[in-house]
Amino acid sequence: MKKVKVGIVGLGRLGRQHAENLAFRIPNCELIAVCSIIEEEAKKAQEEWGVKYAYTNYEEMIKNEELDAVLIASPSGFHCEQIEKALEANLHVFSEKPLGLYLEEAVRVEEAVKKHENKVFMLGFMRRYDKSYAYAKKKVEKGAIGEPVLIRCYGLDPSEAIGGFMNFAKNNYSGGLFLDMAIHDLDLARWYLNSEAKQVWAIGGAYGYPEIGQLHDAETGAALVKFENGTMGVFVAGRNCSHGYHIETEIIGTEGTLRIGTVPERNMVTVFNETGAVKECSEGFLERFEQAYLSEVEEFINCIREERKPDVTVEDGVLSTALGYACKESFETGELVTVQSPHNVARSTT
Amino acid sequence: MKKVKVGIVGLGRLGRQHAENLAFRIPNCELIAVCSIIEEEAKKAQEEWGVKYAYTNYEEMIKNEELDAVLIASPSGFHCEQIEKALEANLHVFSEKPLGLYLEEAVRVEEAVKKHENKVFMLGFMRRYDKSYAYAKKKVEKGAIGEPVLIRCYGLDPSEAIGGFMNFAKNNYSGGLFLDMAIHDLDLARWYLNSEAKQVWAIGGAYGYPEIGQLHDAETGAALVKFENGTMGVFVAGRNCSHGYHIETEIIGTEGTLRIGTVPERNMVTVFNETGAVKECSEGFLERFEQAYLSEVEEFINCIREERKPDVTVEDGVLSTALGYACKESFETGELVTVQSPHNVARSTT
Amino acid sequence: MKKVKVGIVGLGRLGRQHAENLAFRIPNCELIAVCSIIEEEAKKAQEEWGVKYAYTNYEEMIKNEELDAVLIASPSGFHCEQIEKALEANLHVFSEKPLGLYLEEAVRVEEAVKKHENKVFMLGFMRRYDKSYAYAKKKVEKGAIGEPVLIRCYGLDPSEAIGGFMNFAKNNYSGGLFLDMAIHDLDLARWYLNSEAKQVWAIGGAYGYPEIGQLHDAETGAALVKFENGTMGVFVAGRNCSHGYHIETEIIGTEGTLRIGTVPERNMVTVFNETGAVKECSEGFLERFEQAYLSEVEEFINCIREERKPDVTVEDGVLSTALGYACKESFETGELVTVQSPHNVARSTT
Amino acid sequence: MKKVKVGIVGLGRLGRQHAENLAFRIPNCELIAVCSIIEEEAKKAQEEWGVKYAYTNYEEMIKNEELDAVLIASPSGFHCEQIEKALEANLHVFSEKPLGLYLEEAVRVEEAVKKHENKVFMLGFMRRYDKSYAYAKKKVEKGAIGEPVLIRCYGLDPSEAIGGFMNFAKNNYSGGLFLDMAIHDLDLARWYLNSEAKQVWAIGGAYGYPEIGQLHDAETGAALVKFENGTMGVFVAGRNCSHGYHIETEIIGTEGTLRIGTVPERNMVTVFNETGAVKECSEGFLERFEQAYLSEVEEFINCIREERKPDVTVEDGVLSTALGYACKESFETGELVTVQSPHNVARSTT
Repeated sequence: MKKVKVGIVGLGRLGRQHAENLAFRIPNCELIAVCSIIEEEAKKAQEEWGVKYAYTNYEEMIKNEELDAVLIASPSGFHCEQIEKALEANLHVFSEKPLGLYLEEAVRVEEAVKKHENKVFMLGFMRRYDKSYAYAKKKVEKGAIGEPVLIRCYGLDPSEAIGGFMNFAKNNYSGGLFLDMAIHDLDLARWYLNSEAKQVWAIGGAYGYPEIGQLHDAETGAALVKFENGTMGVFVAGRNCSHGYHIETEIIGTEGTLRIGTVPERNMVTVFNETGAVKECSEGFLERFEQAYLSEVEEFINCIREERKPDVTVEDGVLSTALGYACKESFETGELVTVQSPHNVARSTT
Repeated sequence: MKKVKVGIVGLGRLGRQHAENLAFRIPNCELIAVCSIIEEEAKKAQEEWGVKYAYTNYEEMIKNEELDAVLIASPSGFHCEQIEKALEANLHVFSEKPLGLYLEEAVRVEEAVKKHENKVFMLGFMRRYDKSYAYAKKKVEKGAIGEPVLIRCYGLDPSEAIGGFMNFAKNNYSGGLFLDMAIHDLDLARWYLNSEAKQVWAIGGAYGYPEIGQLHDAETGAALVKFENGTMGVFVAGRNCSHGYHIETEIIGTEGTLRIGTVPERNMVTVFNETGAVKECSEGFLERFEQAYLSEVEEFINCIREERKPDVTVEDGVLSTALGYACKESFETGELVTVQSPHNVARSTT
Repeated sequence: MKKVKVGIVGLGRLGRQHAENLAFRIPNCELIAVCSIIEEEAKKAQEEWGVKYAYTNYEEMIKNEELDAVLIASPSGFHCEQIEKALEANLHVFSEKPLGLYLEEAVRVEEAVKKHENKVFMLGFMRRYDKSYAYAKKKVEKGAIGEPVLIRCYGLDPSEAIGGFMNFAKNNYSGGLFLDMAIHDLDLARWYLNSEAKQVWAIGGAYGYPEIGQLHDAETGAALVKFENGTMGVFVAGRNCSHGYHIETEIIGTEGTLRIGTVPERNMVTVFNETGAVKECSEGFLERFEQAYLSEVEEFINCIREERKPDVTVEDGVLSTALGYACKESFETGELVTVQSPHNVARSTT
Repeated sequence: MKKVKVGIVGLGRLGRQHAENLAFRIPNCELIAVCSIIEEEAKKAQEEWGVKYAYTNYEEMIKNEELDAVLIASPSGFHCEQIEKALEANLHVFSEKPLGLYLEEAVRVEEAVKKHENKVFMLGFMRRYDKSYAYAKKKVEKGAIGEPVLIRCYGLDPSEAIGGFMNFAKNNYSGGLFLDMAIHDLDLARWYLNSEAKQVWAIGGAYGYPEIGQLHDAETGAALVKFENGTMGVFVAGRNCSHGYHIETEIIGTEGTLRIGTVPERNMVTVFNETGAVKECSEGFLERFEQAYLSEVEEFINCIREERKPDVTVEDGVLSTALGYACKESFETGELVTVQSPHNVARSTT
């Protein structure tokens, strides 16, 4: 089969990483179009990577008949609309998480994806493609820990990134700590526990950065979730991790336990000095998940070529978003919240 | 000052450990009496350690005028009564946790302790005397992690001990998972966070051992606690830990994080074999907290000799018990529970 | 600049890995020819990866005028001759280690490389391109450990691979433990210590596999090396590592120490089960050095395109081989051996 | 049996630790005499611990007829003479390592010990009584790693202690790096490998502290030892370890490997901060081997009471010293040295 021709929209840090992967590191695909509302960014990318087309207008790009697929790495607020338009334009779609910032639009996208069922749709829950996470999943499936009982997920952004986040959040709706940061973990929990969330209680505060509290958001928060099959989920999310980007997951089972990333070590070097024995930590998501960001898009391309669907489905996006919303509601009201079926919610609020 | 003369009641596994510490490893004290309702046990201990007096009746023992202090290591149901009687007999008292199995009796003991304020009373929250826990406390106090934000505590008994527990629990009231297992962690949380619990949601189940469910107890459970100062507590307790006795505590602060016992390694040996690089784990509390059990009683003896009070107070016992009860209530009702002042509770239910 | 057109000779495990990297994962190059004396192997590779030319004869391949470069992944005994021929054919050359099995031929290749100084020659000391090793090198250069004092290197092949090695070694000259296994470590030592070896004492035996002794080789061995600048090197090499492929390096400096790969963990997962807390280990070189094998060839391609020379030079190959020979001689004679300048040796033995 | 009455000579840091253990932490013994040439030191100890007798003269102390045993913790130069005198006075003897600073005197002591075979003699190779080392020994004996092949020992004193050492070494004969620091490791190697050393090559230098070189000693050194049974020993000793007191031992066997103290962690706390994930390290021998120093003397007391001999024999002292001397000779001459039978050496040099 011929190479898959891809266009990308959004050329921020992650967008550029995806673009370089498409251009240079993934066999069987070709990056033929880049799109950014910042013209300079698009031009620069075009030249740097020798890309055929550059756009500042997304609608223009998806009209390009050479395209087979688009990769959406624009700000979260644009995801839903761009996914829908791409599907309408008969393109395969890879979208960065989250599916949407509002549950209603997530449900609407779900319908659009179902309507275009001959198209590959994939959501960027890259952690499932991280070697360690994928390995742990296989271990669980092979029964290495018996039946899963409890999952504990830490998703902590480095303190160093908090300035950037504040600048963004003052002028944009980020979704809040649980939807923005914890969404990956909520998906992982559903994946490892094989069950949907039933009830949640979430708390948190703005401990070191009171200005986050002024945005009615939490700097650090915790949620306890009861799943339908009786299993448990403990989630800690935060934006103020002094040692770096700390993504850790633990699955306790009836016959064993798995931990992924107990220490978010950046490599295999240990430094011994006056401080002690030091493992330096990952600085951010691009460093920690470099391989996963590459592998997920490889899988997207392979799915297109092999006419199959990826394991991450649009439902995963919708249901994780629904759980994220329940966390957010619980945090905001202080109450124990029963997770609603997203389809009912969407219907009732429409 | 002359040596402190101590009598011990209860000669189970932990009782014997305490007795040997008193007899041989703690300076400035003398074990002069042992008491067990099992006559043989008392006789054997008397001979083995060369103890002056052996009793099968606690009331008899505390009449012995040579005694300065008693150490209570009897089953939990006897603690309150024995503490009160010892105080009445004008003895210093060290009692194993829990203070009591019912909040009312804990409050009653609190009053008794306050009445005999010239006597040293100490509760066996030995973890505070474990070198690693004590070191972490000092680190926190020196500001090494800024302000504490969240504590995570794991208290998991080894699967191997579950048979013994079931035998006990079928015929006795253990207090349930949160009061019996998590009580140490609840105390640690109050200690490190410097705050009292406000609200709790606790869930759990009998995942690998359904027979525990028939006792209306949880085999493994989790609780999320909001503290009065806005900080958070995450507690996981269980009786089915395949790798051994897993006691782990993490304190996340605004400027750093401390972890104690991430891997419950039994010693400094790593074994490399076909399995990989293996750290063997502690098998039980006596192995893990050998030093702490010794140090806490040394502190008790020193307090008596130096006429000062230990840091662990009877209030710590009452308030930790109150939190344990709130966890239990939440687990049993499925509701979010507001932690009541134990004094009000005791009053209203009397 | 146009893409670099590469041919590969040798399609064993590592050869195939290199070929796939060239074909799919490295930008700016094109795998246009494969060569294996096993016709089937060459055909299969050609079809599988869509390669333009397939050869069973190396001399034929290098006559292909479209070629810019060759990658040599044939058995060690062919390296020298194939390098020389490729250079004569005016091609850039990447050769797997070792440079040669005999010091004389290594020196001869060195001369050939110098004669064709407009060609890029690179030797596959891939560890220098492993992220952790490269990070450690930068740390050392920035003074993180003061001045290096001692390097300790472990290079241990998994027990599981010993059957395959025995089959090979019975019919082929492997070079022996120190030249075949330790050569990477000898190069690393020279790299981190910035000095050449002066004296060596090497010992060893065939502890678990006496049949290796019958080949006059060591199954496990150790060498202590004194370097010209007074620093020290400790090398342990072996073919019988039960826990997997153990590559570990430590650099002790006057102000700190670095360790790379203390536990040869295969990923970030820790398994807790009845055994304890288990880090599973890398099974072999392709798993451990996947990234390094890719990065080194990327660097080779970039050097060609940017008309510069790689940091690994032919002298590195010659001098590491000289040290390997000294280890081998010491092991065989039981004597302390002074490392000779390879050029003198080559001259005197010719 | 009545309590063993002990006198101690030497009240430096380690002497005081031993004295406190004897006085307070070891059952079945009584510290009845202290001796130090510094009168004040002896007086202070007497008062502090309530000891019956205080001496400034060793000969006076051992005349005391109440004594059953002496513990010798005086400077190394006095050990031999004091051991001999104590045995002549019919006392059981525990002596700190080393047996002696000269091989001849070590051999002489050996004869004295053999002559008084009804007396318990024990040498302070405390590591054998450290829980982790003892556990590893049992593992080896049970075949957990097959047959031992190679032992690697690190014995590194903290940089912080180097000032104190220099002050001492300028005016005293320390024995040099290999006899003074590595002696514990040389004993451990003989213990784990069950064999005696045959040949050694030792090198080293004064890398960060050239003034040590002026004493004709090494600040950091390495030795490679071939044992009679064909096994290997790698020893790294040093006085300039920036991260603390690093004692690490590894035993590689035909079927597995054990490591003891890979990271010389001071406790079970991990600190996460801007630096990374930090394990703080032991500051010195009293911190690292607190338990071992206690256990070895407990064993000494138990041997006396139970009329048996400890596992550490005077031969262990003599043979480890002989190996230490061979290391020293090799370091000083630069030659490969064959380890002589200490008895022959002693004879020929007398």
